[in-house]
Amino acid sequence: MSFRATILTLYPEMFPGPLGISLAGKALAEEKWRLETVQIRDFAEGKHRMVDDTPAGGGAGMVMKANVVARAIDSVMDGDSVADERPRLLMSPRGKPLTQKRVRSLAEGPGAIILCGRFEGVDERVIEGRDLEEISIGDYILSGGEVAALVLLDAVIRLLPGVMGNEQSGETESFETGLLEHPHYTRPQQWEGRSIPDVLTSGNHGAIDKWRRAQAERITRDRRPDLWKAHLEAKSEK
Amino acid sequence: MSFRATILTLYPEMFPGPLGISLAGKALAEEKWRLETVQIRDFAEGKHRMVDDTPAGGGAGMVMKANVVARAIDSVMDGDSVADERPRLLMSPRGKPLTQKRVRSLAEGPGAIILCGRFEGVDERVIEGRDLEEISIGDYILSGGEVAALVLLDAVIRLLPGVMGNEQSGETESFETGLLEHPHYTRPQQWEGRSIPDVLTSGNHGAIDKWRRAQAERITRDRRPDLWKAHLEAKSEK
Repeated sequence: MSFRATILTLYPEMFPGPLGISLAGKALAEEKWRLETVQIRDFAEGKHRMVDDTPAGGGAGMVMKANVVARAIDSVMDGDSVADERPRLLMSPRGKPLTQKRVRSLAEGPGAIILCGRFEGVDERVIEGRDLEEISIGDYILSGGEVAALVLLDAVIRLLPGVMGNEQSGETESFETGLLEHPHYTRPQQWEGRSIPDVLTSGNHGAIDKWRRAQAERITRDRRPDLWKAHLEAKSEK
Repeated sequence: MSFRATILTLYPEMFPGPLGISLAGKALAEEKWRLETVQIRDFAEGKHRMVDDTPAGGGAGMVMKANVVARAIDSVMDGDSVADERPRLLMSPRGKPLTQKRVRSLAEGPGAIILCGRFEGVDERVIEGRDLEEISIGDYILSGGEVAALVLLDAVIRLLPGVMGNEQSGETESFETGLLEHPHYTRPQQWEGRSIPDVLTSGNHGAIDKWRRAQAERITRDRRPDLWKAHLEAKSEK
């Protein structure tokens, strides 16, 4: 069974969107992953099919209703959360930051049920009651969880079996070595007065590896002191 | 003049994608922002229009060629980087992490030229030679910069003048207070045996504000020790 993504959203027309093109699109056509969307509004009641309501305690914005969201989630699982072992994710700026490690663990699993938050947020009780894992893709505010879901799926899909060609599969995974990647160069040798560093065309593979490692360390130290610190700590524990 | 986004990509058909729908789509139709795409391959040479080549020094993957990318960038600026004052961004996992602060500063500017990296990366010389600002949306690997560009634009567009209605414009911006948001609740009062916390329906606005603040602090401390630490440091500097 291939990886199965079910998206709960008010904008199902946003999917597959960019994931219907290129690497992910080809993999979708080849059924290396599957995509379903659920329109949350279909589970709302009344003439106006309200999915949101004003926040208890006052304040700006609207909150997605617990009962509507829960019915949408339950419909996916056919009322049986044991049989459907996929993690239930809520894309939310309050969530745990997405890491390459979590991406890899998702890619090794059966799929994901992904709720795309909108408005001010989702009623806290449905997060608790349906055991939703809140995931944040970064420290900025989006108009909704949909583009965050696209990012999460894009990251996961490229790791699924058979999706990347041999050419790419050997690549260095920046965040798994704990360092940012070294600079890349390709032909021409000279461009606008700038040369490819001599060491890279020396044929000395030991020297090339050493140079790349030093560059990766330098870039990580300069740009991401947080990653650099974590890298040093991981190293000292070995 | 409204915010003008120019995307340099090998997959122009990915745009506007989700940004053609909902809030961003309505704003695009109303010309509150403008979108142009540039196919990088149009600036490649030869029968095969190669945009990438093998990495100098060996290794897996391919590198986007400096000369091709530079020509694509220069075409946007009509060879005059002074007249086009928009920042030139490169979506890359090696970049500086995107923050709500940078999102806001972009939204206050004339627009952005956004290069979507693919393959192993872009020749370092074009990053230097065209003064590209590398931006990362998070610590995970995507198939390319396109979905990252969608995320960046989604975050920016909602802040553009006239895009959000009055209802939403007063919302608390999580990352600007330095804390994650407090939990939200809305009707019904009882759901599956779970109640809205009494304080929120008390009508005591002082108590509500205090509760929300305490919850936001608790959630930030528990989930994001990094943000909590930064918040305490900012507070102690005041």
